Amino acid sequence: MANAPAAATEPDVARTCEDLATRALDASRSLNDAETGSRTVALERVADRLIEAADEIIAANATDLATGRDLGLSAAMLDRLTLDGPRIEKMAASVRQIAAQVDPVGQVIEGYVRPNGLRIEKVRVPIGVVLIIYESRPNVTSDAAALCIKSGNSVILRGGKESFASNTRIARAVADGIAEASLPRDCVQLVPTTDRAAVGHLLKMVDRIDVAIPRGGESLIRAVVEQAHIPVIKHYTGNCHVYVDAHADDEMAREICVNAKTQRPGVCNAAETILIHREAAERGLLARICADLAAAGCEIRGDASTRSAFSGAAAATEEDWSAEYLDLRIAVGVVDDLDAAVAHINRYGSRHTDAIVTRRIEAADAFVQRVDSANVFVNCSTRFSDGGEYGLGAEIGISTDKLHARGPMGAADLTTYKWVARGDGQVRT
Amino acid sequence: MANAPAAATEPDVARTCEDLATRALDASRSLNDAETGSRTVALERVADRLIEAADEIIAANATDLATGRDLGLSAAMLDRLTLDGPRIEKMAASVRQIAAQVDPVGQVIEGYVRPNGLRIEKVRVPIGVVLIIYESRPNVTSDAAALCIKSGNSVILRGGKESFASNTRIARAVADGIAEASLPRDCVQLVPTTDRAAVGHLLKMVDRIDVAIPRGGESLIRAVVEQAHIPVIKHYTGNCHVYVDAHADDEMAREICVNAKTQRPGVCNAAETILIHREAAERGLLARICADLAAAGCEIRGDASTRSAFSGAAAATEEDWSAEYLDLRIAVGVVDDLDAAVAHINRYGSRHTDAIVTRRIEAADAFVQRVDSANVFVNCSTRFSDGGEYGLGAEIGISTDKLHARGPMGAADLTTYKWVARGDGQVRT
Repeated sequence: MANAPAAATEPDVARTCEDLATRALDASRSLNDAETGSRTVALERVADRLIEAADEIIAANATDLATGRDLGLSAAMLDRLTLDGPRIEKMAASVRQIAAQVDPVGQVIEGYVRPNGLRIEKVRVPIGVVLIIYESRPNVTSDAAALCIKSGNSVILRGGKESFASNTRIARAVADGIAEASLPRDCVQLVPTTDRAAVGHLLKMVDRIDVAIPRGGESLIRAVVEQAHIPVIKHYTGNCHVYVDAHADDEMAREICVNAKTQRPGVCNAAETILIHREAAERGLLARICADLAAAGCEIRGDASTRSAFSGAAAATEEDWSAEYLDLRIAVGVVDDLDAAVAHINRYGSRHTDAIVTRRIEAADAFVQRVDSANVFVNCSTRFSDGGEYGLGAEIGISTDKLHARGPMGAADLTTYKWVARGDGQVRT
Repeated sequence: MANAPAAATEPDVARTCEDLATRALDASRSLNDAETGSRTVALERVADRLIEAADEIIAANATDLATGRDLGLSAAMLDRLTLDGPRIEKMAASVRQIAAQVDPVGQVIEGYVRPNGLRIEKVRVPIGVVLIIYESRPNVTSDAAALCIKSGNSVILRGGKESFASNTRIARAVADGIAEASLPRDCVQLVPTTDRAAVGHLLKMVDRIDVAIPRGGESLIRAVVEQAHIPVIKHYTGNCHVYVDAHADDEMAREICVNAKTQRPGVCNAAETILIHREAAERGLLARICADLAAAGCEIRGDASTRSAFSGAAAATEEDWSAEYLDLRIAVGVVDDLDAAVAHINRYGSRHTDAIVTRRIEAADAFVQRVDSANVFVNCSTRFSDGGEYGLGAEIGISTDKLHARGPMGAADLTTYKWVARGDGQVRT
């Protein structure tokens, strides 16, 4: 036992995490006390420092890529990991865009006067300390840090170990920019170890960390939920549906189905299942949609009705209805009515984004009312489920949770509120 | 092993909980699909059924009280447990009051049109299935159920084992009322066993239960947080402060301190610590406030400065600054300036409710900005931190969390939202 290295290093990891979280909490208080404008200035300096450090970031990234190749990462993963001049310029531009947004801190959400004269306001304030856990893409380091600073929070960043060197250099550039605006460097800290035990420690620090936001694969998120004592806002990926109603406009249905699946198949708001009303299927729309999708290079897995309408479809299994392909593949099924479509979506969907195509008000209203998802659309592509498309500016992600924030999360969703009551001596009787 | 009763019953408890949660989820979907008005009608029927069942509720309560006496519960606990005619009438009146409130479901929180013509709305919808875990007072059974039905949620109720018979009969009356309005009885279910293992099972059912709200002592809440995989909204109790600034109006400060401590000492928004600026203390205000409190029957535990100003004060220990007495006892300390007051509150407070008494705008603004609590007051008693006083109607409790809901929680805080986008064929390019 005395020689076991894991046991020997464990207290150090715990101490490192304690120290990190304490400094994050202290920094969040300084940030809260600082002048409002200083956070905007800090973000502009962060963008400058990213551009300035581009060569060093690319050099750090080269060591990550070399390790990644040795570890046998796929070409797609290596691509996501790669940074070059234009990608770093994009990271800086994203930080400048976040700096230019309206400041959510201090917004009065509600305000009124009570009969006893108390003036009550519900005012947006920073949450405090945010822990972001993410994988691969190193640009998340600057994006997430910028959104947290925008909303007045300290952030602890825990990226994937495959991007550790890149993330370390990016986080340093971010902290340098923040320090130039006289805000504490500790507002942005990267966990300085890739030891897995670190996450477990951080997720239990209820007195110093206010929320964890895991972004990545389902197994990562489940592991976070199981270990956490602090609140978690989950960003599960999407099994999105398009339901083509009996009363759909045929051309509109064809365009929406193709766009929702093929415009960018690898993202969470791409459609993974099409459900079509039997009447629409029988008038030939099912065959036309399948042909459109096949022409766009998409593999189709259909139920029996789909296969008899379109011979190019393979047989869908039970697993296909739950699958998030993130690829040019789609499940297609025929339903008898809207009730069956809603039941299917609430059973197999992931509560992310689901759309109906219809001309009938009753069908649209029932679908909107009864589908239990973060984003429910009428007559448009599922691909609009996005902070930018909603006009929120940059987004921290798309929450599949129901508590605190649901759907695309912008900087305002990284705030909480305070009740402020102002009186002139009121007491309760 | 074969004879161990705990191990033998365990699978039954797990099955009971699975079944309970599945029925709650199914009921929540029926409730969501039902007409809006039916929830109001249901609550009116619930109130009728409570009055009608009063004798049976009182009889069930008598068995709880007999068991409680055998178990040696304190007189205060037995009082909290006791139901009689007037108390049941109050429960029914509270349900009617909740029925009369504005319906939060369907409220449009935000709505706007994007440049591409998409009409976007953020609409309040029920959360789904809510688990409420509480202690002793049986009136929470009908109050919590009514707030959940008002907001369109199914509720699973887990009361204290000392009130199990009372809660069972009350929950039946509530379900009877709901069924009369043609809504599913399973919208309101009491966990049908007092087995401790049941809570552990329910707290892990992420696919069927959306949130847990524990109300009670600190140890109950910590145990819930440690076991839960579902999100938890915590209702810790309050260590509330009144800070008397150098620029306070003396008469106002005296009235607020006495009211905040003594108007109802056993509740979470009663003050537990008074901090006073050295200048205010030195002009004699400290001695007058201590004398006022002592005259109201309050025991004073002071720091050295307080003890030299008021000889009736005992010495405060480190524990006193963190204590939530819920009694006629208070900690009193002198601080050198507002910075020291804020640092003390953020260190020892419980982020519940803290007030400043001052005439200076700068002091009020700095206190509001820097104290990290759910409710921050200027020139009024901490006792106003209450859903009724804020005009929210009945409250499910006072959240000491920062996520989802902070401070007094009304029916609207038991909702989430859905993003609804309506288009006429928009696709992404």
